[in-house]
Amino acid sequence: MRVEIWSDIACPWCYIGKARFEKGLAEFAHRDEVEVVHRSFELDPGRAKGDTEKVIDMLALKYGRTPEEARGMEANVAANAQAEGLGYRAEGRDHGSTFDIHRVLHLAKARGLQDELLSLAYRANFAEERSVFDDAVLADLAVEAGLDADEVRAVLADPAAYAEEVRADEREAAELGANAVPFFVFDRRYGISGGQPSEVFVQALERAWKDRPVSTLTTLGGDAAACDADGACEVPQGTSGV
Amino acid sequence: MRVEIWSDIACPWCYIGKARFEKGLAEFAHRDEVEVVHRSFELDPGRAKGDTEKVIDMLALKYGRTPEEARGMEANVAANAQAEGLGYRAEGRDHGSTFDIHRVLHLAKARGLQDELLSLAYRANFAEERSVFDDAVLADLAVEAGLDADEVRAVLADPAAYAEEVRADEREAAELGANAVPFFVFDRRYGISGGQPSEVFVQALERAWKDRPVSTLTTLGGDAAACDADGACEVPQGTSGV
Repeated sequence: MRVEIWSDIACPWCYIGKARFEKGLAEFAHRDEVEVVHRSFELDPGRAKGDTEKVIDMLALKYGRTPEEARGMEANVAANAQAEGLGYRAEGRDHGSTFDIHRVLHLAKARGLQDELLSLAYRANFAEERSVFDDAVLADLAVEAGLDADEVRAVLADPAAYAEEVRADEREAAELGANAVPFFVFDRRYGISGGQPSEVFVQALERAWKDRPVSTLTTLGGDAAACDADGACEVPQGTSGV
Repeated sequence: MRVEIWSDIACPWCYIGKARFEKGLAEFAHRDEVEVVHRSFELDPGRAKGDTEKVIDMLALKYGRTPEEARGMEANVAANAQAEGLGYRAEGRDHGSTFDIHRVLHLAKARGLQDELLSLAYRANFAEERSVFDDAVLADLAVEAGLDADEVRAVLADPAAYAEEVRADEREAAELGANAVPFFVFDRRYGISGGQPSEVFVQALERAWKDRPVSTLTTLGGDAAACDADGACEVPQGTSGV
């Protein structure tokens, strides 16, 4: 079974939702047969690289709140994060374009290190308030996750590297009707939006597992040469192997 | 869209089918949005590690053929492989347990190098008739694919490493009704058995693409805290973030 999770590093509910999902997954009997894939989603896709500001200022400006009210919003999120055992400083992290972070996350995915880098980036952004929008910080995190430093630098230096992969994930999110993250998709059959309690994830995993398609594939193509479970590899009569 | 391919390194039609599938994929307009995952299947699961024999002897014994007839079967397969531009010696490769090869292929999958190793292992087995059942040969191929030599040695030395991943793939094949390989599954909706002509794969890709589930997810769970596409991350009224 496969669970796809659309998220953005700038999204605190994605950070919290990831922990809640993982708590639910740990309680799920078939957890060893669940593959988790993280997919890209930008909350602020129009923001230019380098256009970085303090999140409190962004919240105040965007919602017409006072800085104190913006801090109150952050404190509420922080309390939820801390209830999950997650660090959350809420003092003044940066907000900026996450496009390059998603590109490097796709490099990490190609190297089997996606979850490692995403976890480190969340921790840096929310628990440590390091500026993940800074290429040097991002490169350090990528190397800490196990990526090759030269390869990371090459991806950061080439704006086209993995850009299409980021956009393809975002197109898929739109096609699936996701307009908020985190967005969890179970075997492309069930969707869950938001950082739900872990019990909701357990229930969704159980339902998707029960309903997973088995032996109901539609067969396409005619007979063709194959090797069967007895090891026989002969060609069907009269087909010459095609 | 995701295509899963169950195969065994000892299966010549898997080697040929992989090339035919890739030829079809190269002609498919949305090829950049197709993810290919290789899954484990053993044609001879009862065979013990180290119980290696010549494939011609195995074929002759298993099907009661003379060695000349067994060579004729191999020559037929070789002609099909060569028609796809694939090397195929057909002179006397080894046959043995592929369990450890599948275990190392799962390590390669975790490192993003699954397709690389599978391609090298097919070439070694069929085009070069190197004994991929020999740990030293397998380790050389894994390192050539880009894996870390120490990590490969550690997996080969620990019979439990990635064993559950191999068995989970095999259980899924059985659940999906696959009793021969190669077996191709498109988004868990369509199945194709055997090394079909590339046109069949093109048609299947087009059909699966057209029918891929979009905007038809069943939503589970109620409202929960999320960050929407405008960047707003507030908690729904009265939910305290859960």
